[in-house]
Amino acid sequence: MYKAHVYVVLKPGVLDPKGDAVKKSLHVMGYKGVNEVRIGKFIEVWLEAESREEALRKVEKMSAELLANPVIEDYRVEIVGGE
Amino acid sequence: MYKAHVYVVLKPGVLDPKGDAVKKSLHVMGYKGVNEVRIGKFIEVWLEAESREEALRKVEKMSAELLANPVIEDYRVEIVGGE
Repeated sequence: MYKAHVYVVLKPGVLDPKGDAVKKSLHVMGYKGVNEVRIGKFIEVWLEAESREEALRKVEKMSAELLANPVIEDYRVEIVGGE
Repeated sequence: MYKAHVYVVLKPGVLDPKGDAVKKSLHVMGYKGVNEVRIGKFIEVWLEAESREEALRKVEKMSAELLANPVIEDYRVEIVGGE
């Protein structure tokens, strides 16, 4: 069993209304020094695989096909555990 | 200007319907070996601070007060850049 971390973030230049709303709330709460907030997804995946390389390949494919929207999102995959 | 990464995840034992839905979709797509999927938030924050320590302290407070729901979520903060 392997464990993967997938970080999905909006591509640079893509507007982030949720991030902007959080930024405004933080300003209202007194955190004036906050310049920008961008909100993405942190996905943990546990999966069976023959090797670490195969686990990485599979999760990369899952990310490209489902976990991230290739039009507006970038993703990065790490295998963080397992054998 | 400092940059922080905040990882917000559901506490162990808290059900993750979104994660389960993604897992089922992955199974339908042929990724039978996927055992579990848990979906959290990956938040990037750019902020002004006097020091790295102050930046960390501020983002920890923001996380406890707004970015994470202390009832069902855990969070972890990293200062990843800036001076």
